[in-house]
Amino acid sequence: MGSAKKMKYCGSCGSPVETRVPEGDTMPRQVCPACNTIHYSNPKIIVGALPVWKKSNILLCQRAIEPRRGLWTLPSGFMENGEEAQQGAKREVSEEANADVKINYLHTLYNIPHISQVYLLFQADLLHLDFSPGLESSDVRLCSIDEIPWRQLAFSAIKYCLRRFREDLQVNLEGLTHYGTYPRK
Amino acid sequence: MGSAKKMKYCGSCGSPVETRVPEGDTMPRQVCPACNTIHYSNPKIIVGALPVWKKSNILLCQRAIEPRRGLWTLPSGFMENGEEAQQGAKREVSEEANADVKINYLHTLYNIPHISQVYLLFQADLLHLDFSPGLESSDVRLCSIDEIPWRQLAFSAIKYCLRRFREDLQVNLEGLTHYGTYPRK
Repeated sequence: MGSAKKMKYCGSCGSPVETRVPEGDTMPRQVCPACNTIHYSNPKIIVGALPVWKKSNILLCQRAIEPRRGLWTLPSGFMENGEEAQQGAKREVSEEANADVKINYLHTLYNIPHISQVYLLFQADLLHLDFSPGLESSDVRLCSIDEIPWRQLAFSAIKYCLRRFREDLQVNLEGLTHYGTYPRK
Repeated sequence: MGSAKKMKYCGSCGSPVETRVPEGDTMPRQVCPACNTIHYSNPKIIVGALPVWKKSNILLCQRAIEPRRGLWTLPSGFMENGEEAQQGAKREVSEEANADVKINYLHTLYNIPHISQVYLLFQADLLHLDFSPGLESSDVRLCSIDEIPWRQLAFSAIKYCLRRFREDLQVNLEGLTHYGTYPRK
């Protein structure tokens, strides 16, 4: 679920909007000359979970939908209004893998500035092995570190998160957040 | 800079929108019956910094604008399209306090679900003492822990962050993220 294109008409009154820097602002915005509404556009949050079973196994979902159909991902998606980031991560696990997790801590904060997205991926305990593909998944699997399909991962944020998870395991690190950006600097 | 009200007219074609659950979705959205655009509305990120000087002093800004004019806050504001969260936090320090920081780690992730906001507040080193009020501030001060105006803080997220900072200092904790929600559970 992506965002709509840049606004051409005012969502409040339907008049054509213009692009200008509002008084007291520093950035150009979409402003309605008829009703004076300023329409801000801001980055979107993608929430997701890194569901862990017995310390070193991860729940991955194969995407049944575009983009990146057939590739593998961690359960994640756009955060919804009215929820907490952690609730959103738990909801995505439920929707995409019919699974249940306990959310622990923020494992990965990953910026994709050129498309104005911020990923918040939470380390989570997978609570039981009763899982199955949700509507947006064609398969759901528990993978050991050696089974992660590194070349068939859907998104750079997911690859970044899983790499850090692998490193964390090697040095027995837990509880720290990793900070990534696409493209890598 | 808040968000506009719920969309009544399609930003793409100007026709009146209707509220319905799109095919394959689970939530009601604003959908245009004329051009079929689905208009998603998602939570907004507020980025900010906890600028620290010599381990226990904090840079606070007094708000020159509504809401909460006259009350004190950490430099923070809505994240902009095209930037990283950490860049946004640094930008807010520059805009509101004419100060320069090195961003370190995420100190506070704070949810306000009823207004669909997520605060990302980064611990940061204040790089020098050359600071002054920016356009949205009436005063900027470096406060020791004992000087924080606890009863004149502008926002719950800021109060939460400063309380955790005070506790961190007491137990000499550094580098960990704190997770809060309003109202407190």
